[in-house]
This record gives sequence, structure tokens and C-alpha cells, in this order.
Amino acid sequence: MLSYNEVQSEDLNKWSFAEVHFNPLALGKCEAIMSLGNGYMGLRSAAEESYIGEKRNLFVNGTFNKFDEFEVTELPNTADITRLDIRIDGTRFSLERGTVTQYERMLNIRDAELVRSFIWEYEGKKIRFEFRRFVSLAKLHQIGLKVSITPLNEGITLVINSGIDGQVSNSGSQHFHEGEKRIYDKTFLELIQTTTESKVDFVHGAAHRLRLNQQEIDTAPKMDIDRRKVAVSYAFDVAAGDCLEFEKMATVFTSRDREFAEGTSLDDIRQHALAELKAFHSAGYDPLFAEHQLAWSKVWEQYNVSIQSSNSFDQLAVRFAIYHLVIMTPAHDRRMGIGAKGLSGEGYKGHSFWDTEIFILPFYIYTHPEVARSLLEYRYLGLEGARAKAIENGFTGAMYPWEAAWPSDGEVTPEWGQVDIVTGKQIKIWSGFIEQHITSDVAYAVWHYYKATGDQDFMDRYGYEMIFDTAKFWASRLEWNEAKGVYEINEVVGPDEYKEHVDNNAFTNYMASFNIRLAMEYYHSLQNSNADLFQSLNGKLELEEAMNEWQSKIEQIYLPQPNQDGIIPQDDTYLQKKLIDLTPYKLQSKVGSIFDDYNLDQVGEMQVSKQADIMMLFFLLEDQFTPEVKRANYDYYEPKTLHDSSLSMSTHSILANDFGDRDLAYQLFERASQIDLGPYMYSSDAGIHSASLGGIWECVVLGFAGVRMLGGELHMNPNLPKAWDELSFPLYWQGQRLEVHINRETLTLTANSDQEVQLVIHGNPIKFSTELQIQY
Amino acid sequence: MLSYNEVQSEDLNKWSFAEVHFNPLALGKCEAIMSLGNGYMGLRSAAEESYIGEKRNLFVNGTFNKFDEFEVTELPNTADITRLDIRIDGTRFSLERGTVTQYERMLNIRDAELVRSFIWEYEGKKIRFEFRRFVSLAKLHQIGLKVSITPLNEGITLVINSGIDGQVSNSGSQHFHEGEKRIYDKTFLELIQTTTESKVDFVHGAAHRLRLNQQEIDTAPKMDIDRRKVAVSYAFDVAAGDCLEFEKMATVFTSRDREFAEGTSLDDIRQHALAELKAFHSAGYDPLFAEHQLAWSKVWEQYNVSIQSSNSFDQLAVRFAIYHLVIMTPAHDRRMGIGAKGLSGEGYKGHSFWDTEIFILPFYIYTHPEVARSLLEYRYLGLEGARAKAIENGFTGAMYPWEAAWPSDGEVTPEWGQVDIVTGKQIKIWSGFIEQHITSDVAYAVWHYYKATGDQDFMDRYGYEMIFDTAKFWASRLEWNEAKGVYEINEVVGPDEYKEHVDNNAFTNYMASFNIRLAMEYYHSLQNSNADLFQSLNGKLELEEAMNEWQSKIEQIYLPQPNQDGIIPQDDTYLQKKLIDLTPYKLQSKVGSIFDDYNLDQVGEMQVSKQADIMMLFFLLEDQFTPEVKRANYDYYEPKTLHDSSLSMSTHSILANDFGDRDLAYQLFERASQIDLGPYMYSSDAGIHSASLGGIWECVVLGFAGVRMLGGELHMNPNLPKAWDELSFPLYWQGQRLEVHINRETLTLTANSDQEVQLVIHGNPIKFSTELQIQY
Repeated sequence: MLSYNEVQSEDLNKWSFAEVHFNPLALGKCEAIMSLGNGYMGLRSAAEESYIGEKRNLFVNGTFNKFDEFEVTELPNTADITRLDIRIDGTRFSLERGTVTQYERMLNIRDAELVRSFIWEYEGKKIRFEFRRFVSLAKLHQIGLKVSITPLNEGITLVINSGIDGQVSNSGSQHFHEGEKRIYDKTFLELIQTTTESKVDFVHGAAHRLRLNQQEIDTAPKMDIDRRKVAVSYAFDVAAGDCLEFEKMATVFTSRDREFAEGTSLDDIRQHALAELKAFHSAGYDPLFAEHQLAWSKVWEQYNVSIQSSNSFDQLAVRFAIYHLVIMTPAHDRRMGIGAKGLSGEGYKGHSFWDTEIFILPFYIYTHPEVARSLLEYRYLGLEGARAKAIENGFTGAMYPWEAAWPSDGEVTPEWGQVDIVTGKQIKIWSGFIEQHITSDVAYAVWHYYKATGDQDFMDRYGYEMIFDTAKFWASRLEWNEAKGVYEINEVVGPDEYKEHVDNNAFTNYMASFNIRLAMEYYHSLQNSNADLFQSLNGKLELEEAMNEWQSKIEQIYLPQPNQDGIIPQDDTYLQKKLIDLTPYKLQSKVGSIFDDYNLDQVGEMQVSKQADIMMLFFLLEDQFTPEVKRANYDYYEPKTLHDSSLSMSTHSILANDFGDRDLAYQLFERASQIDLGPYMYSSDAGIHSASLGGIWECVVLGFAGVRMLGGELHMNPNLPKAWDELSFPLYWQGQRLEVHINRETLTLTANSDQEVQLVIHGNPIKFSTELQIQY
Repeated sequence: MLSYNEVQSEDLNKWSFAEVHFNPLALGKCEAIMSLGNGYMGLRSAAEESYIGEKRNLFVNGTFNKFDEFEVTELPNTADITRLDIRIDGTRFSLERGTVTQYERMLNIRDAELVRSFIWEYEGKKIRFEFRRFVSLAKLHQIGLKVSITPLNEGITLVINSGIDGQVSNSGSQHFHEGEKRIYDKTFLELIQTTTESKVDFVHGAAHRLRLNQQEIDTAPKMDIDRRKVAVSYAFDVAAGDCLEFEKMATVFTSRDREFAEGTSLDDIRQHALAELKAFHSAGYDPLFAEHQLAWSKVWEQYNVSIQSSNSFDQLAVRFAIYHLVIMTPAHDRRMGIGAKGLSGEGYKGHSFWDTEIFILPFYIYTHPEVARSLLEYRYLGLEGARAKAIENGFTGAMYPWEAAWPSDGEVTPEWGQVDIVTGKQIKIWSGFIEQHITSDVAYAVWHYYKATGDQDFMDRYGYEMIFDTAKFWASRLEWNEAKGVYEINEVVGPDEYKEHVDNNAFTNYMASFNIRLAMEYYHSLQNSNADLFQSLNGKLELEEAMNEWQSKIEQIYLPQPNQDGIIPQDDTYLQKKLIDLTPYKLQSKVGSIFDDYNLDQVGEMQVSKQADIMMLFFLLEDQFTPEVKRANYDYYEPKTLHDSSLSMSTHSILANDFGDRDLAYQLFERASQIDLGPYMYSSDAGIHSASLGGIWECVVLGFAGVRMLGGELHMNPNLPKAWDELSFPLYWQGQRLEVHINRETLTLTANSDQEVQLVIHGNPIKFSTELQIQY
């Protein structure tokens, strides 16, 4: 049971949430939503003591490995350092035994610290426990743990076994060689493991400090080296009333870390790691936690969205989203993307999807453009794999992979999924083959970033090339239909993944057309503005030839139009499919429940959608459709949409705002906010939902504040939910940082320079310098 | 807590033992000592519901795989089929919660069935559980489980999730590709996995049947396919007083199974497996358990040792030993050996040591010679690897590996072990390089088998070649010491593994000399008796040349002699090493505890032995030493011996008998019997101790009954312990089966044919036909 009100500390109100009863049947929930991280690594918040059903995960971004030739590459679950085996008077401590009172497991979002505390009573002895943990944002390789144990009524004999455990795997797939195990000076534990295929070296370190009533204890542990494991055991008697503090300082380095130049030897990395471990050990938990706290205070200066609402959950939800967006994003290294589950679980194997470009990138474009640029540069590096994928599939240009890992990997979508309830076989996953809209999504993101930031350097180095080469792909992908005299895109999966092998998915066709038109526009503008660069790219990409092809095809691309009822067909056959009563499957707590009754082939023959599809089209290309068409399609498609994807709800919320239904928009925002943080205890088991978290920020800033980039202009259409009195957030536009403050009547904008800002508020063009305050 | 007296069923007295209180901190004990098997496969007895700290192991003999180039080959832990996730009213059933009464987990040795029963009370509801399990000895590929659940006072909602779980590993090393998962007709579950390096295909099947109050229920389960996993969930409401029975029928086949000829396709194996699964499913638990029971009744006709003792533990201990010897031995396939932990744990990776030849083989030689022959043929097949090892090490002939896996593998001893408490590094394991006596142990076993059985066919096909080629190895291994004018064997590890890199380990030198002399003897006898075979072997092994070398060296091999005190130096330096007080380390419950205080280098400099060394020499070559020398050495070495090897105690017991100390012999037998079955709760965690179990039988038959083969003659020197009134056992000699019955005064022998039997009883040569009864 999660609670958002019972957090003990007053000053953490709206900055934290807690589990107030331990639930051994829903361990995954808090493990994922309370996970810690810093973009370099992500640590799932499994308890120190083990439980049946737990998932102990520690991922380092970008360290992909392939278990064998039959599996796709994935982020390996590296050695666990959080597990402690705690024995009290010879009994293994576990919350499943004894009586637990004053239980609270709290994620302090402000400081990015996990705090767990309770009193455990077992065989007459009462013991107070407190566990603290952080993954440093100041020093990306550090993890700190602190445990305080206080027997309250009787003395105890305490044994703590702690170390580095490389017996973990990714649900059975082991990505590491056993490696080398070492204990220096009975104090510094080291486990060095290398991934089996990608040969990334991991250097794990751990060391401990102990204090009794604030006094340092110097006690020699029992050493324990086992298969894939190195550990130490400390034993003490603790008298009633005494407080034993146990600190664990751990470090993780890998040979893929950007600070190690190519060719840095493992021994150099090892020495570096050991030195950092020793420094960390010598400092202890508190000073390094203070550094980490300071780093997080800067995060909140950069990103904080403030909401005054009669529903305090709203403020928490958006901070929760920002917290997770920060911990999942590899802002330190452009060679890495964002995983669909961040670094909080094994789901989707750490792969990047269109989730990044469409649902997360706007957050960074408008609140930290440097990070947005880094994420787009990751896609630029991915051109290598995208070009290879195009060639493999008989096309030209850049065909982005549906799922991406290391940039040069190309397509890494697995081929087989869950059970088909009719055949008893595994379901084939078609996305990696035919879910092709990702390519235009990337081009769209480049355009979005450029228009909002004006970052010409990015365009010159990376952006033009990406837009041209994706357009080349689409031109080669078009299929001529002689009978109809149009170019079609057949045999695809659109955003709605419950419809496979469809022809002319509207979203796909419109976005392909958009992508080609964008290339054509930039062809001309670049020719004029930067002839050298144009020539250089022309040499590399044969642009003139490409332009001829674009010109010859662009007007004949089939773009499905609204029918007599104003409904745009999602694809060639959707509107002819049968209708069923979806009531039993529309409960958000049972994602995918339709597959208890039908298999994917059967669902494919019904007017049932997994997620926003036409709605996505309206969201991305909003000025191409009238409000009436949007509303008619919303009313037609939403009842047929199960929202079985976490990408669905926020898009619907934003669209509801667009056509003026503020209450519906707020209701959908609330539902979107509950995907991870709500009462659905199993929804986050495989990890949090990255796109949904970006979507929460989008609901607030693009939805209720109505921030949009339209044709290169900044638009704002504030329309706060009834429950909200005020909303503030930072907004970057053309290199300036604006502070936006919206209350019931007034919109206030403050700029951090005196450069003139132009924008359109509710349709009215406005210019200002420094500050603007208007009744909207 | 184990109990040997509280087994509820009267007729299982001395045929079973039970755990009467569940102990979550010592799970390994019952998992190992109650493990099930049939020589084809071994199933560790982890509970159906999971616990922290459990080891779920299922091994199929001979299916070795190497995880990577840094690890040695090992028996892979294959997919688990015993785990059931049982939910009662939404709570995961676990004995760590609620109140448990009438708890008993019993291994019924007679029927090889594991039975666990108790009443579980949770939140006011009382539920009776009974779990039964067998691994069929009649059909080697079958495993049966049966669960009965009876709510006693209130109805319950019950959900059982059951399937095949391939997420298991060998302590983190994953030996399988993910493989193929399938459910046929919502009933027959299939997981096909292939080992990563050795490419052995495993076909796992499982199917379920359910009955409510004896009435079959036909209910469709929810299907569940996950990574490396296939499962189904059944849900029901069970009213108070109703009994739900849940049967699981599982099958395991592999492409290494002898019944599948080379080149049998995986699809054929799969069809075969599915057909057997369907037949098993259609029959159900009870009829196939009855077949299994019948197969075990034949085991007990073949092997039963009956002891009338005032201490009923003795009878149980020897049956326990025989039970485990039968379930660990691959009697069905000569391409496989016996693992040092049988098939009951990951310890020693399924590898075969001298344990087989010296501690287990006598059991088979004297009670089932066909199996002894199969085990020796495994070593014959191992000549390939042994020859390769000799060449790699610069020798000739056959140098057997210290640890053996698949016969052609050669040496598979791992190179690194536990932590060195001084350096904090892993300890180097030298056995695979320099523990060389295994080669003469194999030759000795061939001779022992031949002399006791008279199996000339075995000698002609395999035995001579093994004896000649091992002798060739030793001749090439000898090192000439010019100063002393002797051949030495330096830089070895003898049986006492706490002394590494020693020169002239007495056991090694004597056994090498024995091996060469044996070859010389057989050279002459074969030349005379079978000139064709001699010529053939001469052509293959260059025997004439070898004979010249043997003759030139044999008399000059240095064989350490007793000093003025009658003490034979264990090696060149042992007697000069320092003495320490071993009292704190001689407690049997703390094997290896000396390493808490010293590292191996330090222990190497003390007069401290891990196990019998000189005593082994007396045991194998008993007629080469006087009783006085034996006693003096016993009295010297035993106080310095920690018995940290399970091979130690039984040898000491037998020797104590040899020099007439019956009480000491009995006391040592009791201690040997307690290695697995005694109160040491962690000693069997990595698996039972195969050699020790063979040693228990040796204590009884070679010790108290004094059965020996000396110079080809059968000797008997009965000397029952005071506590024993009668002892009976079968004894094979020269192809005849004798029934031996010994009471306080009389020895009775009955033969199963009228062929004359010659033997020596307490030094008196005797002949008889059919039956002999004498006062001894």
C-alpha cells in the first residue's frame, strides 16, 4: 500500500512518498518506482535483506551485451552490492517473520535518498532499524548505504554479511565471465567481471565502516570468496540502547566509461577505481551524501515545476516524473540513449524506442536543451546502424531501428514474445521488422529541437544529415499503386501495435510525407545559407538525385482523408473490422487483459486499439487538422482504445486540452500520473514507464500551459485545471531561459536576458523583453 | 533438526528419517541428504515453495558443459520442475509465515519417496498439506509430484502456478540457451534447451492432473510463457473438508541419452518425449509410483545389508549409504562416472575423483559386479583424455585427470579456490597439476575388480591396456636422484591435500611402484596366456620397450621406510615440520576451520594433515606392512589429522579393525556415518559425500566383516562391534553370489550355485559348496 500523506517529515511534503506496510507480494512496485540512479547507473530498490520474488538490478548505461546468438543485446544486470544478510541471535532477519511496527519505506525525491525504517520485534526483542541509500549524482560511480540497528529492550548478537554478488543474471541469462575476486587489507572488496560478448570490463568495489554509538569500531571481518562472489562478515554483540551503524561504500567503473580513453588498460581502471573507493571509504556516507544533495538541489533549480493544486498528488506526480527522467538519462555521454524502463528494471532490455523522441525529448528541449542535443547526437551516431538496417531491408538512406542499443548495433528488437493462448506458442514480434514510423519520429525530433532552440551548430554537424537520410529511406520505402495512382506504405505496424501488417497506417504515411517535405525544405534553405555544407552532404548522400526522387513522389503519397463522418481511417481496413464490447478490458489495472480471451490474430480483426494512433498524428502535426476532425476522431477512437500502452493516456490528455475539454484533460492527466505511482501494484514490475513520465511533464507544460512550437513560433494556451491555482516552470526558447508563472488569470514570463522574446498567446502575437505579465 | 525415531509410520522403522521442525537456516541439509535420483538424473529436494537460501538442482548425468573458456566443464543445473507457487486467499504459502504443526519431511529410503506433511494455520484457517515426490527408477526419465491440500476449518481460494523454470543456473553460470517454449492443448508444457558449448539438447515436459475428493477436475489453466520459463496457473475454491489433489508428471530427455542413436534428430527426441509425457500423464502418479517401488524392491534384494544392533542408527546409516550410492551411479551408461557429490549438489561440478575407485568401487565389486565393470569402462574410455594429459605434461602413457568429466575431456580440475586469508586472493588449486596418485588408483581398481570377479573378458578388452599404459606413465614420471641413486617422485600432492609440492609422498611412491610391478606381472602372464592379445597391445603400446624401462627402474624406486620409531615419513619433510595444538580444529562440525587462522602456505609448514595418507597406503597395500608399523603410524598420524576430508574417517575405522581395536573402529564408523546424516547442519550444503557413503559400506563389510581380497584370495575376519548381534549382506566372489550372515559366534555363507568356494577365515583356508556354517 503506497501512501502519499503519511510521510513523517513535514518538510518533505510533496517531495516524497512512502510505503507504509511491507507487501511481500508486490515487491516489484517499490523496487521500480523508488529506484535510484544518476544516468550513469540505475539501482533498483530491492530491500537489503532478500525476499522471494524480488528483482535485484543494477544497470550501467550503455554496457550492452548479447548472451548468445539467439538473444538480442541487452543491458546486463551487474553484480549486486545492496544485499545484506543480517542475522540477529542466529536468525536471518526478515520482515516476513516477527512483528513489524512504524514501518516506512520512503523515497525522498528532493535528495534522491531512499530511507527505510521500522521496529522489528522477534522472540521478545525489539530492534529499531534504519536503512539509507543513495546513488551519487555528484560522483557518478558511487553508491552509499547506511544501516542503523538499535536493540531497544535486550542486547543482541548481530552478524552482517556484505559484499559483491555476481551470481545475479538477467532472468537467467548470465552476461559476465566469473572474473577476478580480491580483498585488499581485509577491507577493500573487489570483483572484476567482463561481459561475455561485448567485452566490457566492470570493476566493482565495496568497503565498510562501523560505528557503535558514534564511535568508530575497528574489527576484522571473516572473509568469504565464493563463486562469482566476494564478501565479508562482521559479528558483534550490541547491548540494549546502543546503536550500531554500518556503512557500505561501493563503486562501479567500466571500460566503457567516457573518462577512460580508448586503450586505457584494465589495470589503470582498477587502480583508479581502488583509489576512488579508498577516498569514499575514508570520507564515509555523510559527507558524500551532502555532495549528492547539493547536486540534486541544482537539478531542482534547473527543472522544477511547481503546482498549487487542491490535489497535492499533482505536485508530487510531476516531481516524481522529473526525478525519474533525471536518473534515467545518460546526460554524461552522448553514446547512450534512454531505456523504455529507464534503468529501473529488465523490461525492454534497456533499449531505446520512439518514447525518447516523442515523449521525453520535449522535456529536455524546453528545460535543458544540452541534454536534448546529447540524446539527438545518440541518434546521429545511430545512423551507422540505421543505414545498415536500410540496406538489409532493400532500402536506401537511414532506417532507424525500432529498438536501439549501442549506436552501431542497428535493430535489436527481440523476435519472440509472450504465449499465444490459441496455439500455445510464443507470439512473433513484428515491430523490429515493420514498425517503421520510428524513422520519421527521429526526423521530427530533430526539427522540433532545432526550431525551439535555434541550435544551428547542431543542424550543421548532425541534423541536416539525419533529416536528409531519413527522407531518402522513405522515398525508397514508398510503393506505387498503379490502380490508384498513389504511393502507399503497406505491411506496417503503426503506433497501435494491436494491428499488424496493415496498409497505409495514417500516422506512418503522414509522418513519412512530413519527413520528405522537411528534407526538401532544408535542401533549398541549406543550398542558400551554407553552400559548402550542402556540397559536402551532397557528396556524401547524393542529395541532388534524392531531391529528384522526392519531388517526383511527394505529391502522390497517399494521405488518408476524413470520411463523411469526419473519421480518418487508421489504416485501409480498420473501419471495416468488427466491434466488440471492450468494457471488461478497459480497466487500467489489467493491461493486456484482452489476451486472456483472444490472441493477437483475433484482436487484429477487431476495432480495438492498444494506444493512441490517429491521436498521435494530431499531437505531432496538429496544424494539419481542424478541431472538428480532432474531436470527431477522438470520440470515435478513444472508446476503442484500451490504453494498454503507457504512451496513450498523456497524448489523450493533451488532445482533450486542445479541443477545450479541460475536465477530461485533467482526468486523463490523473490517470496518466497513476501508471507508475497509482494503486496498480504490478504495473511497474519490469520497470517504470519512461515515456509515460515524459508524458506527465507534457500534460502539464504542453497540455495545461499549452506550450507548443508551431511553424517555428512559440505558442502558449494556458488553461489550468479547476483544481489548480498556480503553475510555474522554466522554459527554454531560442537559447533563453524563461520562468513561466501561470495563475487563474495571469501569465507571467521572466527572461534571463534582455533579448526580445516573441510568442503567440491564445492566438495573439506578443513580444517582450525581460518580463511579461498579461491576463490571458 | 533431524530425527531418526519420530517417523510416524511403524513399518518404515530403520528405512526412513525425517526432519521434524522446518529450519529455514539449514535448507541445504535436507535438500542434499533427502535428494532423489536414479543414476540418470538427480533431483535435490528443495521444497515446492521457494525459500531464501535454497538450492534448486536437477542434474542429468554426463551432460557436461563449459560456461566459458575460463571455467571448467561442469554438470549443468537444468530447468526446475519442482517449484510450485501456491497462493491461499491471495497470500503466498510459506512455512516462514503462520503456524506449522505436525511437520514432517521424511525420506522413505525403501521406496525412494520424499513425503512432506504438516498443518499450516494462517489467519485463522487451518490447512493440511501433503507433498509426495519420486524420481522413477523404473522409467529413468520420469519425475512425479503429488500435492494434497485440505482446508480443515474454512474454505480457501487456491491458486497454484506450476511449470518448467529455466531461469536457474549453476550459482550464476548459465549453461543453456534460452530455447523453445511451448504448451500443447493447454496441458502439455515443453521447454527445449541446449547447452551452450557441448550442445546437448534437453527436452523437458510437464503436465498436471487435478482431483477434488477423488473426482477428476477438468479446468483450463491460465498459460504463462516468460523468459526461459513456461508455466500454467490453476485456480479453485476448495471448501472446508474437501481435499484437492494436484499431480505433476514431468519428463526429462537429452540428446546424450544412450537410447538415442547418434544422429537422432531433436524432433525425434521431442516426439518421443511428448509421447512418454502423455503416457505418464494419462497413467497418473500412483501406477507409475508402484512401478518405481517394484524397481526399488529389486535394489534391496540386490544390495541389502542387514544389521541387528542395539543402536538402530547403524542399520539406517548403511541403508542411507546404499540408497545414495544407487541414486548417484549411472549404471545405465558406461560413458559416465560418479560425481564426488553424486547428483545432489553443485559441489565439485559433477566431476569424478579417486573417490570412485577407492571408496565406492568395492561396494559394486562385491555386490553388483556389472556396475563395477561399467564404472571401470568409464575409465577405459577416459584413456583418451589421460593420454592427452600425459603428453601435455611431457610424459608418456596414461596420466589420469585428478578430476574427470566426459571421458575425452582429460583434466577438468578448476584452477582457483577459496580466499587466502593472508593475501585476500583466491587460492590456487594444485590438484589438477600435481595430485597424480589417481593414475595408480585406477590401475589398483582394475586389479581389485579382476581379482575379485575373475572377469577375464574385461581384462582382455580393457583392463590390461589400462594397467600397461598407467605403468608407462609412472616410468616416465620417475626422477633419477644421482646423489642417492634412487628414482624419486617429487613435487606432488599426496592424499593429504594440506601438503602441496612435496617430494616422495610415501603413498604416491608405493602406489606407483605397485602399478609398475602389476604391469610387469601381467606382461609375463599375458605373453603366456594370450599371445595374440599381447601382440596386439604390444603393437599399440610398445610394451617390450616399456618392459625394459620398468625392469631397469623398478628396484630403484624410493619407497620410504619406517624410521627408528616405526614411523614412515609421509613425505621428505613432514616429520621435520612444526607441531601445533590442533584441539580447536578437530571438531568435526567445523571442517576447514584451521583456515580461519592460517592460510594454506602456513598449514603446509605444520605437521597437520587433512586426511588419511599413510593410512590409505596401509588400507590399499595392507600386506606390505606389519601390524606394529600400522599401529605406530596410526598413533602418530591420527592426532595430526583433522579429518577435513570425508574420505578420512572410514579408512581409519577399517584400520582400527585391522589392528584389533574394535571399539575404536566402531566409534570411527559412527563418526563416518554422521558426515551426512549427523547433526552437522551445513556439511552437506554442496551435496552429499559420495566417498564417505562408500566408506560406510566399507566400514561394515571390509571393516567389521573383514572381507578382503589378498593376493587373489577372499579373506574374512569377522569382528562385530559390541552393539551388533547380527550382520548379513550379499557378497559376489568370482561370479557367484554368496549370502553372508554373521552373528556373535557363527559365520554362515550360502552360495547361489554349487561351485566350490575357497576363502580364508581368520587366517584359516576353507573350501565349501552351497553352504558353510562355522564358529569363527
